[in-house]
Amino acid sequence: MKRLFLILIVSLIFFSSHAEDGYRLWLRYDKINNPVKLESYQKLITDFIIDGESPTLLLARKELEAGLKGLLEQDITHASNKETASLMLTKFSSPRIKQLKLNINPDHISAEGFSIVTTTVNKNKSIMIVAHSDVGLLYGTFHFLKLIQTQSDIDNISFETSPKIKHRILNHWDNLDRTVERGYAGFSLWDWHKLPDYIDPRYHDYARANASIGINGTVLTNVNANAQILTEQYLEKVAALANIFRPYGIKVYLTARFSAPVEIGKLTTADPLDTEVRQWWKNKIDEIYQHVPDFGGFVVKANSEGQPGPQNYKRNHADGANMLAEALAPHNGIVMWRAFVYDNEVPIDRVKQAQNEFKPLDGSFKSNVLVQVKNGPLDFQPREPFHPLFGAMPKTPLIMEFQITQEYLGFATHLVYLAPLFKECLDSDTYTKGKGSTVSKVIDGSLDNHTLTGIAGVANIGNDRNWTGHIFGQSNWYAFGRLAWDHQLTSEQIAEEWIRMTLSNEASIVDKLKKMMMGSREIAVQYMTPLGLHHIMGWNHHYGPGPWIKDKPRADWTSVYYHQAEQNGIGFNRTTTGSNALEQYSKPVQEIYGSLEKCPEEFLLWFHHVKWDHKMKSGRTLWDELCLKYYQGADSVRWMKNEWNSLQGKIDEERFNHVNGFLNIQHKEALLWRNSCVLYFQTFSKKEIPEGLEKPDKPLAYYEALEFPFAPGIKPRW
Amino acid sequence: MKRLFLILIVSLIFFSSHAEDGYRLWLRYDKINNPVKLESYQKLITDFIIDGESPTLLLARKELEAGLKGLLEQDITHASNKETASLMLTKFSSPRIKQLKLNINPDHISAEGFSIVTTTVNKNKSIMIVAHSDVGLLYGTFHFLKLIQTQSDIDNISFETSPKIKHRILNHWDNLDRTVERGYAGFSLWDWHKLPDYIDPRYHDYARANASIGINGTVLTNVNANAQILTEQYLEKVAALANIFRPYGIKVYLTARFSAPVEIGKLTTADPLDTEVRQWWKNKIDEIYQHVPDFGGFVVKANSEGQPGPQNYKRNHADGANMLAEALAPHNGIVMWRAFVYDNEVPIDRVKQAQNEFKPLDGSFKSNVLVQVKNGPLDFQPREPFHPLFGAMPKTPLIMEFQITQEYLGFATHLVYLAPLFKECLDSDTYTKGKGSTVSKVIDGSLDNHTLTGIAGVANIGNDRNWTGHIFGQSNWYAFGRLAWDHQLTSEQIAEEWIRMTLSNEASIVDKLKKMMMGSREIAVQYMTPLGLHHIMGWNHHYGPGPWIKDKPRADWTSVYYHQAEQNGIGFNRTTTGSNALEQYSKPVQEIYGSLEKCPEEFLLWFHHVKWDHKMKSGRTLWDELCLKYYQGADSVRWMKNEWNSLQGKIDEERFNHVNGFLNIQHKEALLWRNSCVLYFQTFSKKEIPEGLEKPDKPLAYYEALEFPFAPGIKPRW
Repeated sequence: MKRLFLILIVSLIFFSSHAEDGYRLWLRYDKINNPVKLESYQKLITDFIIDGESPTLLLARKELEAGLKGLLEQDITHASNKETASLMLTKFSSPRIKQLKLNINPDHISAEGFSIVTTTVNKNKSIMIVAHSDVGLLYGTFHFLKLIQTQSDIDNISFETSPKIKHRILNHWDNLDRTVERGYAGFSLWDWHKLPDYIDPRYHDYARANASIGINGTVLTNVNANAQILTEQYLEKVAALANIFRPYGIKVYLTARFSAPVEIGKLTTADPLDTEVRQWWKNKIDEIYQHVPDFGGFVVKANSEGQPGPQNYKRNHADGANMLAEALAPHNGIVMWRAFVYDNEVPIDRVKQAQNEFKPLDGSFKSNVLVQVKNGPLDFQPREPFHPLFGAMPKTPLIMEFQITQEYLGFATHLVYLAPLFKECLDSDTYTKGKGSTVSKVIDGSLDNHTLTGIAGVANIGNDRNWTGHIFGQSNWYAFGRLAWDHQLTSEQIAEEWIRMTLSNEASIVDKLKKMMMGSREIAVQYMTPLGLHHIMGWNHHYGPGPWIKDKPRADWTSVYYHQAEQNGIGFNRTTTGSNALEQYSKPVQEIYGSLEKCPEEFLLWFHHVKWDHKMKSGRTLWDELCLKYYQGADSVRWMKNEWNSLQGKIDEERFNHVNGFLNIQHKEALLWRNSCVLYFQTFSKKEIPEGLEKPDKPLAYYEALEFPFAPGIKPRW
Repeated sequence: MKRLFLILIVSLIFFSSHAEDGYRLWLRYDKINNPVKLESYQKLITDFIIDGESPTLLLARKELEAGLKGLLEQDITHASNKETASLMLTKFSSPRIKQLKLNINPDHISAEGFSIVTTTVNKNKSIMIVAHSDVGLLYGTFHFLKLIQTQSDIDNISFETSPKIKHRILNHWDNLDRTVERGYAGFSLWDWHKLPDYIDPRYHDYARANASIGINGTVLTNVNANAQILTEQYLEKVAALANIFRPYGIKVYLTARFSAPVEIGKLTTADPLDTEVRQWWKNKIDEIYQHVPDFGGFVVKANSEGQPGPQNYKRNHADGANMLAEALAPHNGIVMWRAFVYDNEVPIDRVKQAQNEFKPLDGSFKSNVLVQVKNGPLDFQPREPFHPLFGAMPKTPLIMEFQITQEYLGFATHLVYLAPLFKECLDSDTYTKGKGSTVSKVIDGSLDNHTLTGIAGVANIGNDRNWTGHIFGQSNWYAFGRLAWDHQLTSEQIAEEWIRMTLSNEASIVDKLKKMMMGSREIAVQYMTPLGLHHIMGWNHHYGPGPWIKDKPRADWTSVYYHQAEQNGIGFNRTTTGSNALEQYSKPVQEIYGSLEKCPEEFLLWFHHVKWDHKMKSGRTLWDELCLKYYQGADSVRWMKNEWNSLQGKIDEERFNHVNGFLNIQHKEALLWRNSCVLYFQTFSKKEIPEGLEKPDKPLAYYEALEFPFAPGIKPRW
């Protein structure tokens, strides 16, 4: 019977031909299911005009044709020979704009921005999408279609927007053999072997999805770089991708392996002050631009985790970055030099190194260099305080590096909506120029008057049919793009847009899903690393709990280094009595975090070593609170499961089953986290699990013995 | 303009939503486009009955419902409450059959076979699908749907069929990290990390496709095995897959790493005669059957290419195989012990080793052991003579191992239809029991009276959306399944079925594509390894030409070992004056191949070292003939390109472009092969390229310098 039932389900799935396999992302364009709205849209939009011709405008036209046809189920024609139409795309510089007197100031709109306004032409209402550039019009097209997808009111639009940040970039940690470091959605989209001759249609869909959310750059290769990508053979392949991405407004970037002059250039050194080395890079960069005339530039990971760098030659990061920047400058290329560094000597506190190495270099970088800084000082944990470099290098533009892929957040199977994590960092106040000196103001250049600005997200995209492994992982790609464009958007706004475009426009469903998404990151923190705990994941692969990890090649690759649990207490003392990493922040921040009383409890064990019986704000002891958090986290995953289950029949079966299956895994793994961590920390606290909480069903030894030798996302090691 | 044109093409592709991305394989069920045929089918098939209930029969029902609805565009109902219907599926044992007097002898149909006959019930015509088993009915269902898909006449059917071979198995060389050894269609379908909790809907589609062509077994893991697959953790994952595959009639098999008792069992030896080792395997196998009650058994690669085996303990292959067979026998499991062996000492002629090691063991294997023999004595070359073990071990059932994935045949981008290669081997006469002792009779058990029979194909399937990388690669999966069922089918028949189901039923298109497919294997032989040349591919990855490969860790891993080119001539002398590998064949075969005159020229350089000025049947010298073959091969790829191009507009744009792109790559690479090999062999022959043939556009050094460090299909080596 059970088998028969299984088969029944199965058959239902497989005969659906996987129409709802998630491939369409948020660009579905299914018919508007609200008849009133549908009719009003149908009346309003009957034809359109695009002034001008270009590959990018052709994309806008095709998008409008396909989008409106799908959404409105009527053919909307491109009225090229008509004088006006119900929808018109044109540039500020066009004769059409000179005739109309629109209430938009072109100077308020940047090169990539756009305006959408309702106006009256010959007594007929027209919606105008206006921009300075073709890509601005493409962005406006996607925005307009979104208004309809989300069933917004479009009767009288008056909207303008420009990106707050110039370079909005995905970082792909993709290797040339198509494995993806920290990738959990299958393997690399880039089928290097078949390039440049064979163009997978999916490359276009990738670019289109990015364009729809304003992403304008993509770094094709892993920061742990391979110099082969810079050879002629591979540059031809890179050029093929760049040609596809160009009309979508997307520039291609590569990672530069610092030792490339030795590895593929036959030089004996990669010393950045060596004349031959500098000439080699200049030639190489000129060669790249012959293949890709609008090549964006390099991301460089140097002198970090074994990667070569200028320090190998007793030079500093600025020496390295400037050498590349100088050769890129004539072509308008940029260097994004990563601040995520740690050298071969194990430090007292690893989180201090970036600031120690980079702050002294402030002011010594060329003008086309950005220093790329992770959101937090450690490494993409479920929660970290903001990185102290933000605000600390006013003379240097800093580019934010977020991680969209869930390296430390349950891989692809955990539903964790990351916008709140991104926002928490962006909204953090560095106080470096007084109150209100938020990280976002550092990043968008407004705090220190930089015009070169950037934000990077480590992509969660692979060749899985649904792109991101988890369908909800798509929301993180989406949210990154939206926040990169406008960091003042709220997480709720973005979630709502995404839900409406991707899953449902029905208010009760939108509300339910929004609550799930908005809660999901805090839930993950609770079942993984509550109260400021960090980096206690499984060794190397970072999958599942591993608070017991110790005795590894480096102390700062172990968990015990970070949680510092012992019989009296737990937590990493980063105050003046400890590593004093705190001193890297501005005084007001030090005062908050440095005080056991004022420190927000979510960061407590990040900054303080705290006694097990420390009284928390709740009145509970630290031990009891810690246990409670773990149990709350796991319980909340059950809540998410129930919420999702209540949508059965309201979401198509294929996506319902997909998410349901993943939530089952998430719940199982949340229990694994809870039981492992509570039992492990109990060996130090020697205290009972608080009353009323169910006891773990297995002893600690069981959890410690679990091994996951083929967890995805790491380079296979033979 | 060029860019604009590119974009135009692009847009056309991406707005089609990839309906024709190849995912549907040959099970498309699009509406019959011939109105006359359509009407006759619609009249004939209005309802159906399936007697009985089971997961497998439910699949048959769903397949009929979806298939007939798609093909005939009318709802065909399952008439469960009616006495008769226009289509009825029932078993020979059913009351219904006892009533009807059908002209079928149940004894002629084997357990998996089926019969389809038109009969008259109550004066109404009915088509009956009759079998002994549920899976027989499922196979009959697919066959019946195929008749309609291929627009066959179904007015009066009288058809019966039973598989000639019992075990029809795919071998997946899939690693637990999802890389696939010699896989060119992306990565492994098996997402081990998410199993057993998450069931990718694609697992069902995989099983369904296999069932549609009669494949009844799948080996999930690489023959270069990892013992982890035998741990509890992984057996749960294996069980999840087995549960999905079971209703489709597909058994799951694994590869057994011989040293598993040491690696995961904590024993100090894996000696097959050691009591503890034997007990360990017995326990392990009992454990497997607790997870998978119908587990099929093991494939073992032992003492070959560094894999451990019984010889490590001075035991022989029979000792190893029998130990496993004994433990599997109570559960009806089998062992497929591979004869592809070579040890650490480099032999005079590697092709001799399998026979040297295995022939003496004939008669010493347990009754549930098959020895798995590759089609040829070397390693899946574009052309090899049949393996001399066929016919040489009459007391031992041999299972054929074909390679469907194109390791030595251009990877996924070359259009090479492999049925002619498979058939060439199956139809070869071993003469071991007189004329007519074909390889197929060895394999199907009829020559030596074996009832345990098998055929294995190394799968070309990966997670590429179209399953096999190249859409035409699907035809090789299809052809393997069809020949495994019935090796007497012709390559043309199979090609025609596949074309009609997959691409078109229009006669002129069918003819054109059939000619291309039928010619394609010979064309590949010509531009790669004409006249009996072999194993001159690029080193390790086997991509592209590498006739110059020498000085590698083993002589038999080089090309010069195999082609033996020198100033006087070329070819491997395997006659009595050379390695005498020829002696491994029966006398009549020796007489043919051993004679420079009688030896078919397609095997000439396989068996003989031949002078450059040797006069060929054409009257040309060997050198001229060799050049001509290379040029003919490359020219013929251009011919294929032109043939395909003539179909533009007749094949949907997405698949047209896909194949067109791949043919461009194939042509480029055929020229690479031609130029490399002709220039390289010219350094020995010192003769001119015959008049009228265009000269290679680059010097030999250029071709020799090409490197492909990330060619797919090999384990990455860090």
